[in-house]
Amino acid sequence: MLYKLLNQIAGPQDLKALSLEELEQLSAEIRHLIIATVEKNGGHLGANLGVVELTIALHSVLSSPEDRIIWDVGHQCYAHKILTGRFHQFATLRQLGGISGFPRRSESEHDHFGVGHSSTAISAAAGMAIARDHLGLDYNVVAVVGDGALTGGMAFEALNHIGSLQRDIVVILNDNEMSIANNVGALADYLSRLRLDPTLYRAREELTHLISRIPAIGSPMSRLTHSLKETLKNMLPGQLFEELGFTYSGPFDGHNIGQLRKAIRDGIKRHGPVLIHVHTQKGKGYAPAEANPAKFHGIGPLTTESHDQEVSFSQVFGSTVEKLAANDKRIVAITAAMADGTGLSQFAQRFPDRFFDVGIAEQHALTLAAGMAADGLRPVVALYSTFLQRGYDQVLHDICLQGLPVVIGIDRAGVVGDDGPTHHGVFDLSFLRHIPGIIILAPSSGQELAEMLTWAVAQDHPVAIRYPRSRTVQPAEVVYVDTSSPILSEEVRAGRDCLILAVGPMVQQALAAAEQLYPEFDCSVVNVRSIKPLDSAAILRQARLSRCVVTVEDNVLAGGFGSSILELLSSEPGIVVTRIGYPDEFIPQGPITTLHERYGLTAEGIARAVRSLLGQDMAAAAAKGD
Amino acid sequence: MLYKLLNQIAGPQDLKALSLEELEQLSAEIRHLIIATVEKNGGHLGANLGVVELTIALHSVLSSPEDRIIWDVGHQCYAHKILTGRFHQFATLRQLGGISGFPRRSESEHDHFGVGHSSTAISAAAGMAIARDHLGLDYNVVAVVGDGALTGGMAFEALNHIGSLQRDIVVILNDNEMSIANNVGALADYLSRLRLDPTLYRAREELTHLISRIPAIGSPMSRLTHSLKETLKNMLPGQLFEELGFTYSGPFDGHNIGQLRKAIRDGIKRHGPVLIHVHTQKGKGYAPAEANPAKFHGIGPLTTESHDQEVSFSQVFGSTVEKLAANDKRIVAITAAMADGTGLSQFAQRFPDRFFDVGIAEQHALTLAAGMAADGLRPVVALYSTFLQRGYDQVLHDICLQGLPVVIGIDRAGVVGDDGPTHHGVFDLSFLRHIPGIIILAPSSGQELAEMLTWAVAQDHPVAIRYPRSRTVQPAEVVYVDTSSPILSEEVRAGRDCLILAVGPMVQQALAAAEQLYPEFDCSVVNVRSIKPLDSAAILRQARLSRCVVTVEDNVLAGGFGSSILELLSSEPGIVVTRIGYPDEFIPQGPITTLHERYGLTAEGIARAVRSLLGQDMAAAAAKGD
Repeated sequence: MLYKLLNQIAGPQDLKALSLEELEQLSAEIRHLIIATVEKNGGHLGANLGVVELTIALHSVLSSPEDRIIWDVGHQCYAHKILTGRFHQFATLRQLGGISGFPRRSESEHDHFGVGHSSTAISAAAGMAIARDHLGLDYNVVAVVGDGALTGGMAFEALNHIGSLQRDIVVILNDNEMSIANNVGALADYLSRLRLDPTLYRAREELTHLISRIPAIGSPMSRLTHSLKETLKNMLPGQLFEELGFTYSGPFDGHNIGQLRKAIRDGIKRHGPVLIHVHTQKGKGYAPAEANPAKFHGIGPLTTESHDQEVSFSQVFGSTVEKLAANDKRIVAITAAMADGTGLSQFAQRFPDRFFDVGIAEQHALTLAAGMAADGLRPVVALYSTFLQRGYDQVLHDICLQGLPVVIGIDRAGVVGDDGPTHHGVFDLSFLRHIPGIIILAPSSGQELAEMLTWAVAQDHPVAIRYPRSRTVQPAEVVYVDTSSPILSEEVRAGRDCLILAVGPMVQQALAAAEQLYPEFDCSVVNVRSIKPLDSAAILRQARLSRCVVTVEDNVLAGGFGSSILELLSSEPGIVVTRIGYPDEFIPQGPITTLHERYGLTAEGIARAVRSLLGQDMAAAAAKGD
Repeated sequence: MLYKLLNQIAGPQDLKALSLEELEQLSAEIRHLIIATVEKNGGHLGANLGVVELTIALHSVLSSPEDRIIWDVGHQCYAHKILTGRFHQFATLRQLGGISGFPRRSESEHDHFGVGHSSTAISAAAGMAIARDHLGLDYNVVAVVGDGALTGGMAFEALNHIGSLQRDIVVILNDNEMSIANNVGALADYLSRLRLDPTLYRAREELTHLISRIPAIGSPMSRLTHSLKETLKNMLPGQLFEELGFTYSGPFDGHNIGQLRKAIRDGIKRHGPVLIHVHTQKGKGYAPAEANPAKFHGIGPLTTESHDQEVSFSQVFGSTVEKLAANDKRIVAITAAMADGTGLSQFAQRFPDRFFDVGIAEQHALTLAAGMAADGLRPVVALYSTFLQRGYDQVLHDICLQGLPVVIGIDRAGVVGDDGPTHHGVFDLSFLRHIPGIIILAPSSGQELAEMLTWAVAQDHPVAIRYPRSRTVQPAEVVYVDTSSPILSEEVRAGRDCLILAVGPMVQQALAAAEQLYPEFDCSVVNVRSIKPLDSAAILRQARLSRCVVTVEDNVLAGGFGSSILELLSSEPGIVVTRIGYPDEFIPQGPITTLHERYGLTAEGIARAVRSLLGQDMAAAAAKGD
């Protein structure tokens, strides 16, 4: 039987009866199941394969759900889910209505803290440890944090706070030398020194030996002995963590279940905060992922084929920035551990001195860009919409308040599919458009993205460009843009019955809706292009003609693009507006097209909205005629 | 002459001609000017008095504006402003149209990076150093960062990045053992060890001496000697910073101009990132501020008297949380270096084990609260509106996505006055109301704040309560609230001509407007109380009656409360809506009442809007009647 042991495990308590050999056999079964499932459903392969032994060790030593295990980022929770009662549901991973690729409190009592963004686990674990102590309870709190996540500022905020609290809490540093891509920063260098250089350990051993040989009596040598002993405290490995108030232990082999179990047992026995440094290999046990962990970080189903003529918006973004940079020395590119995902890998290879991957540190990425822009560069920052949420204040306070010419490429705007609610980029129009001085553009095609980027780097003000996780036609080799004129809206179809205002790729759906409706209704379709500032004059003129407006955006309705149209038209009584977008709820995981269908962001949905609106309108006219 | 030396200084270049004795005399003049001005205008006294000598040292060694000096937070820039051509304007500090209390790029070429929020300077300085190197220029980049600001996560993100970049950049750690209040966290402990304990230095000296006496030839001693030399590298003081790639020097006496000048000269000579640790005293030279630096962090003009019967909203918040906590063990309070400002000092004294000041670390504060709420506590997080911007993602991803019962007290909502655009809390309604699952309340009085807080801690969902920096009548001793019913709106005045929907303290202005308008127009006034969810049924009913609505909010118009009313009424054609709030621009510094007047958030402004709207309405009716 393929999953002999897994079939016997109803919950983590069943691990306690297994021998070390059986636990190792179990890790092979889990690895097999993860690979087989991710090949079908897509998912985070590398991170999950890296922590199979660690997860087994944790669940065999701890007692979840009483003991709390908090996974940082959460993209490494598959083994955890398989071992906590979700083995039989695991085939539904990341599917509509299926189990999430991330921990979710609503899914299981073993998912103690939901997550999807990085660097939150230590804060949450600190909260839980405080709650435990305050309520007089007694359970273990363990946070599992990747070395990449540790570069996120809030992880440091939490370490700094916990270090002074002296609560019983275990942080497992899952050091795979990666965030999404190769890790960056001084901390990564530090960790590799800890991993690779035994000098410190040896020096400490030998110094201890030396001290033992110094005569104990007689100044100044006795004073020296004392000083040396004091000094030794400052020579422990992991001193950076020790300085922050943690007891450091490690590094341990993250694929040795026996060693891990012992380290975890020792860790939970100690009082105060403990950091256990575990060295794992991303993609462990799957040769292609071991060889290229960045590529296998998050993948789609392996069977999916892409159309050859098409490219992703991210690729258009990356290749356009590269072309622009070739002609403008001021252009540099910044990302936060998303070089591959944002299409910037080739830029990074061609212009290594002009490419800055700051690690998982969106806040720094944006203010770094502000500093560069203040001193004459034209930085282009590429982030996923959902992660830009971390930099809201920096966009407002550091970039826009000073009007600095930073270009923000907002990738993965709109729903992103199987990663679900923690990753959908459906808030950016709402959290950006009220910031004074920002320009927000949305291209409906790769060609427009290339044009807008070309325009953006020529401006003296902040410009954000949002584009989806989808494919588009390859843009023309040479892009011509008049960079001295503002970006205006474009009427892509003329009609008198209803005005459809569409944002980004929704323009295609709006056009298709207009075709479906014709000749019953004759709609105009406008590619809005600039969400802020709005092309107010043109939109007002067109809205006055049809007196009936439908807005379509891949964003929440509250405070979004449609809301800005209501604001624009608020002094124009008698124009009816229907807005299509996401309602006031978190959008579940599922295929992008399915989600678009569910929420009416399709040709059919738009046509339905127009029919309903014009029906009302005619009813109102009829009523008036009475 | 009172300011003999200051009168001779046109710009920082004039410092170069002064002797050390004259520079010290200058520091006395600057200190005198700062105290005299802040006594009149209010301002940040402690931080500014602490850096007078440091500022003189910086400007006498460096050459601004070529050399960049980046002030973190910026509330310590007064001496800098006085020395860079703004001595004669200094009397206008923080006044409407006057110079800002913070660095502003638009104000002077010497203000290289505008600021108001904490922990941004290292990121900005990194960007400037990269720009300098990329453009082949040659100037010094110096960031001045307080020890409190160093606990903000993005400062760590920047340190981590810079440490691996190895650019020439100087970070001056201005260690005054304070953020706004006493500093917290393991880093603060670490710094005090560095400051106070000379053991490390002595041990290093003595170990060096010891090694020199070990015979150089013959194993294993020669190997030991090598190991010890390696070890020495890890025993330098400031090793935490050294591990992050910085060269550490210090601590230096921050009030000794000669020592500071030498340290800065040495620092800018070195290659790579340098951290200069300077020890200063907040409030230096002003006895009351030295004795109570938290009180003198940011102060109003000393002549201002408050009404005895009145209390601040912050005080009501603090005392109510204290009362609630006395009856509900689950309630704990969290703030981020704002214990005094948010009214929580007394809570902290009474419940030291239930009070958590995490330092300048809003992100951690919010996710810590989420962790506590997940494990059974009812955390109340008190932050200023403008600083909550730092935690937007944590509110969304950690609290609301999981529906965790965290209460967020949003203090200083609306314009805050003299601190200006970096501190106005005019975005919170817009950046919060699109987050699914959040409840947003706004009390119109202290009594309502007490009631809403009482209600909020009894809920099983996230609740945010926003209240202004102003005074209110002391609420009743005992507060009764039905915690099982939702918070509904309240019609505080009935009328048929126009519906005025007012948020928070704007209710008083709306009532006054209605009185002014009566009997010409008879307006109803509704205290909205719950911005989200809206009391839709009541608001719709009332709006249908008058068909004419005016919304009033101390928030930007874009995406704000009025925008949510447009959304609510979008399916109700024929109801006209005028929104009063802030336009799409950053709001300048100035007295709160003056700012309210300028933007129409007064009885007169509201009355004007109603008149204009009803005038239009009647004109339209007249036109229809033609």
